[in-house]
Amino acid sequence: MSKGKVCLAYSGGLDTSVILAWLLEQGYEVIAFLANIGQEEDFEAAEKKALAIGASKFVVVDVRKEFVEQICFPAIQANAVYENVYLLGTSLARPVIAEAQIKVAEENGCFAVSHGCTGKGNDQVRFELSFYALKPDVVVIAPWRDPEFFKRFAGRKDLLDYAASKNIPVAQTKAKPWSTDENLAHISFEAGILEDPNTTPPKDMWKLTVDPEDAPNTPEDFEVHFSKGIPTKLVLDGGKKVVSEPVELFLEANALARRNGVGRIDIVENRFIGIKSRGCYETPGLTVLRSAHVDLEGLTLDREVRTIRDQFVTTTYSKLLYNGMYFTPECEYVRSMIEPSQKTVNGVVRARVYKGSFTVLGRFSNTEKLYDETESSMDELTGFSPEDTSGFIAVQSIRIKKYGESAREKGNNLTL
Amino acid sequence: MSKGKVCLAYSGGLDTSVILAWLLEQGYEVIAFLANIGQEEDFEAAEKKALAIGASKFVVVDVRKEFVEQICFPAIQANAVYENVYLLGTSLARPVIAEAQIKVAEENGCFAVSHGCTGKGNDQVRFELSFYALKPDVVVIAPWRDPEFFKRFAGRKDLLDYAASKNIPVAQTKAKPWSTDENLAHISFEAGILEDPNTTPPKDMWKLTVDPEDAPNTPEDFEVHFSKGIPTKLVLDGGKKVVSEPVELFLEANALARRNGVGRIDIVENRFIGIKSRGCYETPGLTVLRSAHVDLEGLTLDREVRTIRDQFVTTTYSKLLYNGMYFTPECEYVRSMIEPSQKTVNGVVRARVYKGSFTVLGRFSNTEKLYDETESSMDELTGFSPEDTSGFIAVQSIRIKKYGESAREKGNNLTL
Amino acid sequence: MSKGKVCLAYSGGLDTSVILAWLLEQGYEVIAFLANIGQEEDFEAAEKKALAIGASKFVVVDVRKEFVEQICFPAIQANAVYENVYLLGTSLARPVIAEAQIKVAEENGCFAVSHGCTGKGNDQVRFELSFYALKPDVVVIAPWRDPEFFKRFAGRKDLLDYAASKNIPVAQTKAKPWSTDENLAHISFEAGILEDPNTTPPKDMWKLTVDPEDAPNTPEDFEVHFSKGIPTKLVLDGGKKVVSEPVELFLEANALARRNGVGRIDIVENRFIGIKSRGCYETPGLTVLRSAHVDLEGLTLDREVRTIRDQFVTTTYSKLLYNGMYFTPECEYVRSMIEPSQKTVNGVVRARVYKGSFTVLGRFSNTEKLYDETESSMDELTGFSPEDTSGFIAVQSIRIKKYGESAREKGNNLTL
Amino acid sequence: MSKGKVCLAYSGGLDTSVILAWLLEQGYEVIAFLANIGQEEDFEAAEKKALAIGASKFVVVDVRKEFVEQICFPAIQANAVYENVYLLGTSLARPVIAEAQIKVAEENGCFAVSHGCTGKGNDQVRFELSFYALKPDVVVIAPWRDPEFFKRFAGRKDLLDYAASKNIPVAQTKAKPWSTDENLAHISFEAGILEDPNTTPPKDMWKLTVDPEDAPNTPEDFEVHFSKGIPTKLVLDGGKKVVSEPVELFLEANALARRNGVGRIDIVENRFIGIKSRGCYETPGLTVLRSAHVDLEGLTLDREVRTIRDQFVTTTYSKLLYNGMYFTPECEYVRSMIEPSQKTVNGVVRARVYKGSFTVLGRFSNTEKLYDETESSMDELTGFSPEDTSGFIAVQSIRIKKYGESAREKGNNLTL
Repeated sequence: MSKGKVCLAYSGGLDTSVILAWLLEQGYEVIAFLANIGQEEDFEAAEKKALAIGASKFVVVDVRKEFVEQICFPAIQANAVYENVYLLGTSLARPVIAEAQIKVAEENGCFAVSHGCTGKGNDQVRFELSFYALKPDVVVIAPWRDPEFFKRFAGRKDLLDYAASKNIPVAQTKAKPWSTDENLAHISFEAGILEDPNTTPPKDMWKLTVDPEDAPNTPEDFEVHFSKGIPTKLVLDGGKKVVSEPVELFLEANALARRNGVGRIDIVENRFIGIKSRGCYETPGLTVLRSAHVDLEGLTLDREVRTIRDQFVTTTYSKLLYNGMYFTPECEYVRSMIEPSQKTVNGVVRARVYKGSFTVLGRFSNTEKLYDETESSMDELTGFSPEDTSGFIAVQSIRIKKYGESAREKGNNLTL
Repeated sequence: MSKGKVCLAYSGGLDTSVILAWLLEQGYEVIAFLANIGQEEDFEAAEKKALAIGASKFVVVDVRKEFVEQICFPAIQANAVYENVYLLGTSLARPVIAEAQIKVAEENGCFAVSHGCTGKGNDQVRFELSFYALKPDVVVIAPWRDPEFFKRFAGRKDLLDYAASKNIPVAQTKAKPWSTDENLAHISFEAGILEDPNTTPPKDMWKLTVDPEDAPNTPEDFEVHFSKGIPTKLVLDGGKKVVSEPVELFLEANALARRNGVGRIDIVENRFIGIKSRGCYETPGLTVLRSAHVDLEGLTLDREVRTIRDQFVTTTYSKLLYNGMYFTPECEYVRSMIEPSQKTVNGVVRARVYKGSFTVLGRFSNTEKLYDETESSMDELTGFSPEDTSGFIAVQSIRIKKYGESAREKGNNLTL
Repeated sequence: MSKGKVCLAYSGGLDTSVILAWLLEQGYEVIAFLANIGQEEDFEAAEKKALAIGASKFVVVDVRKEFVEQICFPAIQANAVYENVYLLGTSLARPVIAEAQIKVAEENGCFAVSHGCTGKGNDQVRFELSFYALKPDVVVIAPWRDPEFFKRFAGRKDLLDYAASKNIPVAQTKAKPWSTDENLAHISFEAGILEDPNTTPPKDMWKLTVDPEDAPNTPEDFEVHFSKGIPTKLVLDGGKKVVSEPVELFLEANALARRNGVGRIDIVENRFIGIKSRGCYETPGLTVLRSAHVDLEGLTLDREVRTIRDQFVTTTYSKLLYNGMYFTPECEYVRSMIEPSQKTVNGVVRARVYKGSFTVLGRFSNTEKLYDETESSMDELTGFSPEDTSGFIAVQSIRIKKYGESAREKGNNLTL
Repeated sequence: MSKGKVCLAYSGGLDTSVILAWLLEQGYEVIAFLANIGQEEDFEAAEKKALAIGASKFVVVDVRKEFVEQICFPAIQANAVYENVYLLGTSLARPVIAEAQIKVAEENGCFAVSHGCTGKGNDQVRFELSFYALKPDVVVIAPWRDPEFFKRFAGRKDLLDYAASKNIPVAQTKAKPWSTDENLAHISFEAGILEDPNTTPPKDMWKLTVDPEDAPNTPEDFEVHFSKGIPTKLVLDGGKKVVSEPVELFLEANALARRNGVGRIDIVENRFIGIKSRGCYETPGLTVLRSAHVDLEGLTLDREVRTIRDQFVTTTYSKLLYNGMYFTPECEYVRSMIEPSQKTVNGVVRARVYKGSFTVLGRFSNTEKLYDETESSMDELTGFSPEDTSGFIAVQSIRIKKYGESAREKGNNLTL
């Protein structure tokens, strides 16, 4: 008799295939779940394989639209970035996948969910915290943290032997010396030879962008239109190509950045569990859209709103995403701070990509008037009285003069 | 009889030449002061001109070393950046120049200092707040905020006419349709045709970097060594060229970035006085050194120290610099927070520049061991018990499960 | 012929009476405006006097309800406080009064507004920044910053002489050696003898609270009910007295705190213009309601939501209020962050006031269940596995052990 | 043969006595350690008992001086407070005790340390994270998280039975219906009947302060002198009693607050492990010294330094202390930010305590001159030109007028 139904996040790869077989061996009934979040994957082959191994059902859920609209676009609005560099590509996908998996689990009467994440990474935390928020009574089966499992499968050979014994077909291609995770927004490379942070990634590792040296010798110019901080139009080929449907726009931005070698990241980052780890990432479209957004905020966002958003919201939101804290009270709170910051972020950025670099060419807004050419002009005094600045400086200096006087009196000369 | 001595920041250009003559006309004795902060300038011509107009003395002070060591290097340590993009090139120079000018003023018995900054910009504020801190009783003469002056010299023609009447020689080259400010770390371009934020800067405007399209077709690789977050060695040409003296290192980084088209910025920024303004900047060497520093912190800085530094110190320090608040109690306080954050930032970054882009190739540290390959490895369990993570997740989820339960009870389904 | 209509904030006192007469003398037509924001004032006498001096109209606007509901209650929700101590009583009133004054100005066709604030205080800034936001083209006439005015009226005697010459009646009571500002939430005392920060305020200065020594010898207990962080019910006399209408509730809280000597503040604070200033305040009801609110958040607010709110919202909102920045983009932004933080702040606080002190006796919530007695209990293990904490500590210590190891290796012993 | 030496934090109470016996039973040799951190305790009786049970050694370490000087005084400098209310009394003691225990462990060749903390509280985390930082290879034995132990001792009766079987004497006094932890700065009460957050603590629970109703009917005035934010002198009895040695000063502040009923706290707080918990605390002296310190900062600390310290240092330091993160890189970093903020905090605060309340009577500084009576005075214009404020306001309003204009154009009327 079955010990109950488990919904397993199944990728078709060796690890989750072994986990599937092992769960069956433990007496569970298994519903195999696979999210289509834009990764390059043979979904049909995965289905066939899962059912062959013994899954009682295979469910693919297409979450690309939610991913772009509910997650990637708000990340652009918030200028999300982790540790100054990482655009959070993997982290962004996790809440979407977890939500879909829990839905499948509930629809299929599963008491438990399972995944193939290792016990040292961020993803286990991201998935499980989301699972517990969305279904607090769910049981999580994490084989790579279960001594019975991880002691039995101590190396790749053990997995292969087990697969052979269970007639699980294994791809003949040699395993790459790193592991990857891919979605519509990015691909990550880590582990294996990348674990030495001084090893330069081999040229053929990169997948979603061409090498800048191989990119076209002519720059490519384009426009991004934003409404309340959300990309609403991407204009290419001097206006000949215009896309505006969110997923299509995102894919087009990916293609644009990809062919021009834009969006590679190589970083040593700090995992939530306190271990440092080296990751290489390609985030082509997001890099371009986010950079354009940052630029437009210069033109259209009030200085102090920007300061508050930068210091509090961007940082906090990015850290929460990275740590898998999407479905938490604090993230709900911080998410509520994104939209109100973007009311005026309406306009167009003209930009260029070229052999790995992104450059702004210009920007304008037809609706926002915080930037005022006349006022800004050094040659104009309209509506501006230079004496006011004297008063401004005089008042600002009240406190500062006291500081200088006090330093003099105490004999501490102020210096650089 | 003289109304007293004034120390004027004199550049040799039209504006400050007219101001010099005008100050003399007002009855002041004028000491002309010029800081050598690495800008391309004909200091001898400036001296000759100042004395010809009537300055009683001309003093050049070479502040390049202080600028690099006391200001640029700490900015690298702090990853200083304003509004996500601007590396603060102009702001960095101001405290150094102001300190030198006050010193000259004091040594020459000047009761007042004067400058040619406009009444709408940041620089007037930056200079004057520094003046008042360093010498609280100083008098500041800011002609461009004095109605008597700015009404008399309402346009360029008025300046030229006055110069002619005073026999002040004016360069025959046509004035450029923008204004610039240059130092060892950067050059700025603003005003004129750049005041339309949608105007792409003309190719021939840029001065300190080649156009990425004109940069070499082969990438250039190099190493930066850091000690406590300070660049101590720059290694080029596969080890054939090594520089370590601070100013020399900085100049070499400039040359490296310049020939590879790295370090251009185009931004609409928020001035301290509340006006938005468009600026184009070239900051070649600083861009490269700062990016390498950011990368090394990934390898060598504790996660939480970095978070605190990023959220509090970087932001606050950058804003204070931008607003000209260097010589203030709060900046003294914030500056004291830089060094303690950098104790472990020791190591080497290998990087590449190519046609406008900067890429990290790898990094290592011989002294810091926060990164631990074995620990980080997904294939190793040495010193790590995966069950611990289960406990970690369980404790993290206590609060989150309550959130999920409460949402369910209240009928608010949690969703993306 | 009139130079146009001016709307003057008129209090009936000597200063604004002289200003009224002076504005008429300058050729303006004057609409006298007086906000009823709960201060103890003879509104009829003020009207008679204004009209007698020559105002063409006198308008009182009752803003007490807006003040309590739109300003005081959100301040309680945000736990607003300036420099750890000051509950912002004066600052809270300013936006309400400014909005009413601009409305009166617009309804009466005034091109300008005027006030009697001094040139060194916060209130001029608070009023004027609000005026400019609400009516950007308004002209502000600030006589105490107009050299013509302040040189003419250099001392109190000049004002009295002028009043006599204009037949303006002056109260015979001797002027108090401090100045005050009062509203429904508080009264301020500053200037005069209080300018020596070491002078203890005389017992008879205080007005809105009894001296703790004169308060009843028996404590008084009460309950405050909150819904989404807003006080909805105040229960006194062991349940015999219950008030829930906002203004009434606030007045009752005032009376309760007043008779028990609660709500006095004495502080040296930092004004927006950079001058330190000593202020004494009585904020009886707000002190009690805010303290109860802080307590209830312990029971009902998620830890991380609270941390974010405390660190970002409370601080920023309080500073913006103090600096008169209510009607600004950033304050609109920060105000939008208050309500989402208060969703779960529902419950009841039982408290006691006694001779100047406030004490919590207990608290409960019928709807929120973040506090869980069983879970919290040291004697219970239901739903909690102590081994989880071992894993939690183990993961937390990964980073910390590295720190300790590194310190040992480098020979820096960690010590207190 | 012994399994090795364990250093047990031993209090003499039932729990740690049972643990001692149990450790011996497990085959360990036990060194009993007791820190004298100012708690009321019969150290000799504890020693006798420990040795009787079988400890091979009993070590008391007097850490009162370190506690006051290295921990309590910096907490005053930083105005440390957790969740607006809790003065961190227990948290403050933990690093001191942990350091002493590790020292004893090392001196006695112990491979492990042990404690009697429960598995749900903060203290286990505070102790263990400190242990791991100070001695990364230490083994921690936490019986209350060891299933073998906590299943065997499921209730108090099991402990008593075991004690009887081991001839461990147990105090005849009935166990109080709450548990306490005491040190020089405070006592905590939690658990038992206090777990219902709506239960008012019984009058006889409180120990370190008299009930405000029982306090003297006459207020008691005193002075606290500070040097760089550290209390250096406490003056009582109108100058008749002066104490300045740190521990003595702290004890005298305790006595003063105690007899006047000052320093009680009742709070529902958020534990590090994510559970809410109710605690009652008495922190008499620290309350008084900290409040005086906050006041003096108003007079002597620059506004912006204070803002930075309040927003970043106070909050972060308090959270780190609470979470037991004292010996961490980030706490070392944050601790380095305390002293530089206190350079100018020199002066004297005159204050009053009376039946539970603390009031400032006045303050002065002989060395700091940031407060300037003339400048502050509303009646003086010396060194101040009111027109400057007009310029200040004009510049501040540039951005705000644009906001108002934009709102008007878009038809969004600005309102409260």
